[in-house]
Amino acid sequence: MVQTDIQPASPNLTNFDLKSYLEVKKEFVEQSIDKSLPIQEPEKIYEAMRYSLLAGGKRLRPILCLATVELLGENENIAVPTACALEMIHTMSLIHDDLPAMDNDDYRRGRLTNHKVYGEDIAILAGDGLLAYSFEYVAQETVNVSADKIVKVLAILGKAVGANGLVGGQVMDLDCEGKSDVTAQTLSSIHRRKTGALLEACVSSGAVLSGAKDSDLQRLSTYAQNIGLAFQIVDDILDVTATSEQLGKTAGKDISAQKATYPKIWGIETSRVKAQELIDNAIAQLNIYGEKALPLQAIAQYIINRTN
Amino acid sequence: MVQTDIQPASPNLTNFDLKSYLEVKKEFVEQSIDKSLPIQEPEKIYEAMRYSLLAGGKRLRPILCLATVELLGENENIAVPTACALEMIHTMSLIHDDLPAMDNDDYRRGRLTNHKVYGEDIAILAGDGLLAYSFEYVAQETVNVSADKIVKVLAILGKAVGANGLVGGQVMDLDCEGKSDVTAQTLSSIHRRKTGALLEACVSSGAVLSGAKDSDLQRLSTYAQNIGLAFQIVDDILDVTATSEQLGKTAGKDISAQKATYPKIWGIETSRVKAQELIDNAIAQLNIYGEKALPLQAIAQYIINRTN
Repeated sequence: MVQTDIQPASPNLTNFDLKSYLEVKKEFVEQSIDKSLPIQEPEKIYEAMRYSLLAGGKRLRPILCLATVELLGENENIAVPTACALEMIHTMSLIHDDLPAMDNDDYRRGRLTNHKVYGEDIAILAGDGLLAYSFEYVAQETVNVSADKIVKVLAILGKAVGANGLVGGQVMDLDCEGKSDVTAQTLSSIHRRKTGALLEACVSSGAVLSGAKDSDLQRLSTYAQNIGLAFQIVDDILDVTATSEQLGKTAGKDISAQKATYPKIWGIETSRVKAQELIDNAIAQLNIYGEKALPLQAIAQYIINRTN
Repeated sequence: MVQTDIQPASPNLTNFDLKSYLEVKKEFVEQSIDKSLPIQEPEKIYEAMRYSLLAGGKRLRPILCLATVELLGENENIAVPTACALEMIHTMSLIHDDLPAMDNDDYRRGRLTNHKVYGEDIAILAGDGLLAYSFEYVAQETVNVSADKIVKVLAILGKAVGANGLVGGQVMDLDCEGKSDVTAQTLSSIHRRKTGALLEACVSSGAVLSGAKDSDLQRLSTYAQNIGLAFQIVDDILDVTATSEQLGKTAGKDISAQKATYPKIWGIETSRVKAQELIDNAIAQLNIYGEKALPLQAIAQYIINRTN
């Protein structure tokens, strides 16, 4: 939570119409990912990949990437392949996390999980296929950006998935199941990898594609780290307070799986306060950009107010 | 099997000391992949990744990449990160193929498979981690090569893994299990993806890094397609004729799993003849390069003469 260059928040933040903004962006992202993965031979694997990739969701990761590019004054088209890749990577991690050998989930976003529909073998391969294709798609389809920036983005994506990102976070998470002595520090270290790394990759890849200065990159990374942690705290709170219907997945699962969560360590009220502090800081990081920062700032606010 | 620019084979091919060549290259590859993946936190996942990555094997894929760079007159150092990445990708595919939900293998290269040692959850994640890291490593570590070539290599790697490569091949393979009416054409289409795509990526990535002309790329790709198919035919023959001890994995598994194989379709003798034709063609493709082609030509010969 580095607080540098803090300037007053734009008075327009409360008036910004985030709902319309997200609707327009989500529609654009849906169309882009639909086009990114046409069905070819062998059809079964493409269908399995598309089943999960096009299963809805908030599309928060691609939207963060595109909004970062616009904040920095560039055309979002330079980041469309990267935005699609971020959603492919996110989808891959959901498919693999849901497997019987991992979290063993039957439902995701209100629909049967990938392995419940296609079988475990195909679900594993669909995840592998999406992961590989995410890199291929960025390398093949990114236009109007110099190759050295594309190479940097591919390194950022790889790092966000690897043992210091999604994969490492899931390993630590599995390791903590059933343990009663998990500290807030360990929990943050898990979520920095499991949620934070990819969210940070969304803004930093957008920033790199836009040719951002180091100082911009630093501010945007801090923003992303803060919303990443807040996102996870809110996720943990919702697991306790929301219904399965609201979440589109099994509620109360953290408790039954004896998972370490923030509400368990801090209680629900303190968890809410800490999440709010993180969001306030995230918003403050971007005040320097004025009006252009409104979408990213409103997204930060939305993260804490969401109900699913 | 396109036969263009065929020139007489070098009389030195039979005198080329492939054994020493492979020993030196293998040692260099072992050291390079060992250095590529130091253990960090969380240690368990790095250990699992290293367990399979450093489990021996012929290191044929990285060697093919490095030999291609040398054939084209460049320094192999430009391709070391890519060579390591190719072995990471190959290892990932072995870890995931061995899982209970797929081929359910307990042994690989004479040692317990990854999931038998670390559990299914970690084995899935170790594969994911290796796949993601392969791209990160090429993007991060490749030096003395222009960024546009690195982007092309990353696209080649992604394509070799995806639904038109390893992943698609495994899907089609699983689909054919127990079917008695698999044609030679279907089988070749499976193996073009499952074995051929990555072998072709080894030489084409080496060629791209070396700044090869289209005509060189075409010749080298044809070489790789031929040795890829021959490799698989020989694999199928060995599954029938070799012992588990010789193979370091369960022999006779194709028959017990009712897999379609070349010996089943063509018989062992015809399979041998076809493999020899493919190898002869692969060798002929490279005659135009004279002495410089000896390593790749000798590797082609070795593929048909190997006993494990």
